[in-house]
Amino acid sequence: MDQVAEAIDPAAVRRVIDELEIRNILARLAHIADTASINELDQYLALWTEDGTWAVLSGTSLPTQEQRGHAALRAAAKARREAGVQGPGTNSRHIVSTNVVEFESADRARARSYFHVFRDTRGERPVSDSVGEYTDTFVRTPEGWKLHRREVVQG
Amino acid sequence: MDQVAEAIDPAAVRRVIDELEIRNILARLAHIADTASINELDQYLALWTEDGTWAVLSGTSLPTQEQRGHAALRAAAKARREAGVQGPGTNSRHIVSTNVVEFESADRARARSYFHVFRDTRGERPVSDSVGEYTDTFVRTPEGWKLHRREVVQG
Amino acid sequence: MDQVAEAIDPAAVRRVIDELEIRNILARLAHIADTASINELDQYLALWTEDGTWAVLSGTSLPTQEQRGHAALRAAAKARREAGVQGPGTNSRHIVSTNVVEFESADRARARSYFHVFRDTRGERPVSDSVGEYTDTFVRTPEGWKLHRREVVQG
Repeated sequence: MDQVAEAIDPAAVRRVIDELEIRNILARLAHIADTASINELDQYLALWTEDGTWAVLSGTSLPTQEQRGHAALRAAAKARREAGVQGPGTNSRHIVSTNVVEFESADRARARSYFHVFRDTRGERPVSDSVGEYTDTFVRTPEGWKLHRREVVQG
Repeated sequence: MDQVAEAIDPAAVRRVIDELEIRNILARLAHIADTASINELDQYLALWTEDGTWAVLSGTSLPTQEQRGHAALRAAAKARREAGVQGPGTNSRHIVSTNVVEFESADRARARSYFHVFRDTRGERPVSDSVGEYTDTFVRTPEGWKLHRREVVQG
Repeated sequence: MDQVAEAIDPAAVRRVIDELEIRNILARLAHIADTASINELDQYLALWTEDGTWAVLSGTSLPTQEQRGHAALRAAAKARREAGVQGPGTNSRHIVSTNVVEFESADRARARSYFHVFRDTRGERPVSDSVGEYTDTFVRTPEGWKLHRREVVQG
């Protein structure tokens, strides 16, 4: 009770607002992976900083790679759709959960999440394609929080 | 630092309180699907507005349908239990994650989530029955946030 | 609009800060299960109260048991790693989601979550080992929220 009566640190309030914004971006990225077509990738890039980096550190179904900047990120997302790995028609579902969000400063946060990707979700039994982990760095920008770096480890 | 020192918008604080309430309801609905018996469905209906609608838009194991209002929602939940699809004894688990919560106004929110339903969870190996997505509309009521409409897409 | 203009209850603000801290601990416990070695278990115990209890009420792959206090919790975590059930090299992933967090008082909270454990995550297809539920009691301590009791039901 006494603790509730204590003044609340405005920085702590700021952080919960920021954290929920980041948690929503984490889920939005997953939805976009499954449902955004090649023509709808602007909404994907809007979640990334201009110099954002998507790095696959080790893969079971994805080759290791590093893509930096909007043009490269867009090309890689397009290539995954062309390869039938994600996007509309592939019946994939990127389930993202077990998220930890930590702040390195007021304007920079780290998130660690687990992913579990299904494919053939309209078949008789959905097929687990891969699981693994995202280690993300988010930064605050004038347009809200954006993803600055995502490291993907499959397995 | 400067940004933390800025005054915090009370509406933003209100939204994080509301968003966590909604996120808890999303999980509670899943728990109820797995563990509430036919005699315990009042707790299920308490999470819905009186005119709430549960709509299966496309299904792999569920038939497409639309149920509106507490009486219809209760009857459908009872029927799923009688069919052995959910509820105690079916050993189902509705895993709900990858939630995005967005506010259309101070009193109305949309949530998009992924579900992954297990059955036979006590067998040697749990069986993935279906995955898919919920698109939900929540509204603020004098008794707290309630689900107004759930659209279910399996697959 | 009127509702936003209303004064916000400081206790409600306190709770969202607390709830996100608890949600982060729930995910951290899962990450530690998968990646902390026997020599890194201090980070595991730091999340538990001194008298914390880990109780397996019913199991499909784990024997029912109750471990109380840091020494017993450490020994059990060490034994699970020695048995190849979790920790580095086992390629397990503890996916934790569908979390409900409720406050019994300002300093005590209950959480209910679903888990889904993968093993062999680097094989051709990840294997679902078990699913089930955690029922947790968290308490506020001078060093932040800590887990006081976890009840595990597999299945």
